[in-house]
Amino acid sequence: MSIDPARELRAQAPVGVFDSGVGGLTVLRALAAALPHEDFIYLGDTARLPYGTKSPESIRRYALQAAALLRERGVKCLVVACNTASAVALDDLAREFAPVPVLGVVEPGAAAACAATHSGRIAVVATESTVRGGAYQQAIWRRRPDAVVATRACPLFVALAEEGWTEGEVVEAVVHRYLDELFAVPAGTRPDTLVLGCTHFPVLSPAIRNVLGAGVAIVDSAETTAAALVGVLDRAGLRRGGAGGAGRIRLLATDSAERFARVGGTFLGRPLDAADVEVVDL
Amino acid sequence: MSIDPARELRAQAPVGVFDSGVGGLTVLRALAAALPHEDFIYLGDTARLPYGTKSPESIRRYALQAAALLRERGVKCLVVACNTASAVALDDLAREFAPVPVLGVVEPGAAAACAATHSGRIAVVATESTVRGGAYQQAIWRRRPDAVVATRACPLFVALAEEGWTEGEVVEAVVHRYLDELFAVPAGTRPDTLVLGCTHFPVLSPAIRNVLGAGVAIVDSAETTAAALVGVLDRAGLRRGGAGGAGRIRLLATDSAERFARVGGTFLGRPLDAADVEVVDL
Repeated sequence: MSIDPARELRAQAPVGVFDSGVGGLTVLRALAAALPHEDFIYLGDTARLPYGTKSPESIRRYALQAAALLRERGVKCLVVACNTASAVALDDLAREFAPVPVLGVVEPGAAAACAATHSGRIAVVATESTVRGGAYQQAIWRRRPDAVVATRACPLFVALAEEGWTEGEVVEAVVHRYLDELFAVPAGTRPDTLVLGCTHFPVLSPAIRNVLGAGVAIVDSAETTAAALVGVLDRAGLRRGGAGGAGRIRLLATDSAERFARVGGTFLGRPLDAADVEVVDL
Repeated sequence: MSIDPARELRAQAPVGVFDSGVGGLTVLRALAAALPHEDFIYLGDTARLPYGTKSPESIRRYALQAAALLRERGVKCLVVACNTASAVALDDLAREFAPVPVLGVVEPGAAAACAATHSGRIAVVATESTVRGGAYQQAIWRRRPDAVVATRACPLFVALAEEGWTEGEVVEAVVHRYLDELFAVPAGTRPDTLVLGCTHFPVLSPAIRNVLGAGVAIVDSAETTAAALVGVLDRAGLRRGGAGGAGRIRLLATDSAERFARVGGTFLGRPLDAADVEVVDL
């Protein structure tokens, strides 16, 4: 077997993960679980969140700045763990960062939806910008051209998740108001699969399940993005060996470390301390 | 009567109004009604909203950048129509822009509360940053040292107002969840006045009124800020004569003109067109 010392060295570098805020920690959690020997640097652009209500131009500019910072930190691969940035800016990021591999969450989310649906009727909930851009619909149609895709922007889901209101009467009332137009339809036209097309939404899964009942598959991008990252690293020869890695996670934010730690714990699934978060400027 | 030509000329200049987004249009509406002969330039920093969840350092930096742009446009006076920026950055803005007068919305809001209360028990709802900074409490205590002030951050109110969900079951459920801890208390300790300490909140007034019932005065900063602006302009000799002014309003935003127009109409109280909005960079 030939040994490429430069590649061996690059394989030691961390994986960069970028999100507009703390929601992408739901993806980081899945990545770290799937690749326990890799190091990760996570950057949340908390000073400028949310991206989901901003124009494509602003989203592109912010995403390129965030990715540039992660490149300076020497990442070997970039995961865009933000649906809005993936939907709007992935091509620009891939062009700018070639040959460093860039991986978004929209394609893995669409793959998960197509694997879960039987009827081909799929509902997608996401931010305004993601819905308006149509990236999910296109990614689903590339895999399954006969799919019927219904979409709905649910900006209040972001606010609920950030507030830590993940269950109860208020949450279910908001879920009803958004989802009834997608699901309270004649049985023959009801979607059998719901894609959570924003990394904030998985923390609302139990409330959404209560509203929809059984019989609808609820999927998100986290698991399939982790599987896709394993594939990307393997193909590039950049996966870290079992012996070497320590599974370190560095957290960077563009605003208050205290708030990142407080809100982020909900998404990462374990308590965070403000001292764990480095504040950076973009 | 002596005539100062330089001052006469300065009086022709527009009043600058700054907010993190579209919420300050509720204040602009009151200003324009009170001063129909003045011209106004309104800047909404929509690319970086909301300010209410950001750190004091970021809020100060953004507010100074926004105010600098309005100064370049030659405003004769600056109204900070954003409670969060008023609460956190007013002293910095006043220092930076002297001798141009700078007026915030927290002091007028506190004055309105003190005029409305009989019992001296006042509740304030605002953003996280406004509540944490304590500016409302201090402004109320300066006027009425025996006041009992209860505060609550209500970030979901911002999301509801931006979404245009201003009444109905969901809105009232959110209002209950936030306000019950302030108002569902023994009668002798119940506030008799509620300050809407964020410019997004006045559009939710009818829903808040439904939840609280009669017997609680609901006040905001818009009317008292307009009265304060009249006083500031008069004292500085900068008020425009009845003959001259046309009451023009220019709207600037740092992100999507289309979204500003769509969401802003709710707050200004009349439909807006994207062509009315100039997009600027900060």
